[in-house]
Amino acid sequence: MTPPETPPRRRGRPPRAEAGDGPGARERIVAAARAEFAERGYDGASIRAVAKGAGVDPALVHHYFGPKERLFAAAVEAGLAPALAAAAALPEGGRDDVGERMTRFVLGLWEDPATREPLLAVVRSAVANETAAAVFRELVTDRLMLPVAGLLGVADARLRAELAAAQLVGTAMLRYVIKVEPLASVGFETVVARAAAAVRAHLTG
Amino acid sequence: MTPPETPPRRRGRPPRAEAGDGPGARERIVAAARAEFAERGYDGASIRAVAKGAGVDPALVHHYFGPKERLFAAAVEAGLAPALAAAAALPEGGRDDVGERMTRFVLGLWEDPATREPLLAVVRSAVANETAAAVFRELVTDRLMLPVAGLLGVADARLRAELAAAQLVGTAMLRYVIKVEPLASVGFETVVARAAAAVRAHLTG
Repeated sequence: MTPPETPPRRRGRPPRAEAGDGPGARERIVAAARAEFAERGYDGASIRAVAKGAGVDPALVHHYFGPKERLFAAAVEAGLAPALAAAAALPEGGRDDVGERMTRFVLGLWEDPATREPLLAVVRSAVANETAAAVFRELVTDRLMLPVAGLLGVADARLRAELAAAQLVGTAMLRYVIKVEPLASVGFETVVARAAAAVRAHLTG
Repeated sequence: MTPPETPPRRRGRPPRAEAGDGPGARERIVAAARAEFAERGYDGASIRAVAKGAGVDPALVHHYFGPKERLFAAAVEAGLAPALAAAAALPEGGRDDVGERMTRFVLGLWEDPATREPLLAVVRSAVANETAAAVFRELVTDRLMLPVAGLLGVADARLRAELAAAQLVGTAMLRYVIKVEPLASVGFETVVARAAAAVRAHLTG
């Protein structure tokens, strides 16, 4: 999922200053891509609109990111960067209360509007498009499932981690997206406690 | 959620044969609406395209269904009619193994491609649009949450039913939509057994 440090060399003219390249061009493209994917979804997003938003030539977007799915992956990574950093620390607390920590981490991302918006944008794209679903799948597998599963030390660790994640994905959908009551209005700590019980049972029960 | 038996009377000219009204017109409109919402989602769907698909005048679509959200609700109901009939029978088996029956019922809908497609169309619309989310919310509340909660006889029955449903919604998302492995490929009975354990704990634990 990590974008290459050195942009891949592509055929054709090298990027030039008049194409909008220069310091910060890559970051401007990623920011414009986040906004475009969030607003139009994966299928509706246009490279031309991203280029316009970043003030660069469409060829420069392709030069830095290649096909649309790489641009989407970079936009998702950027939108969820703080979350992904926190996920990397999940295994550090050890196996005993990993269920509680995983629950608090995932539901905490949805509870905070600043991280809820990029997550919702990814979910919208992933349910509508197979390529976006693959990008999302790779992300949650590498960054959440495998680190948690690695702690469990049992043969079916990945299946356990996925069923635990399913409880959290579904809770987020019903509380924050579909907004069924009373789940949508009940206190955060109540939701964490109830969901964590199921997550714990999946992981270590 | 049930569409009115008698179509609401609206102002303006009554529908005429040349507008495409006649035996089966209502059913043709619903079928065309299902296809249109499934293909374009709630926001992208057009009444004009539905009318064209049904071979009627757009005014006749409005005459029968009123605003877009009523047409969406009718299309969802029609798409999930067999599922909703089965949901109505869920409480009949009593409280003891309602968790197992609820799990088998919901995951069974997703396992069968014939019911998976209309469900996926609803989920796509509901994650992208607040109005579609409200239609979906009303449907799952009336047809699944309330009947199951009614069996439990405890004060927090609705919250329990919703957390149980969250396990199933999330399992469906990760197995059938995002397709994380091994959850996407493991046998149906294994998934039912694992998910049912969590559902049971939420409902009656």
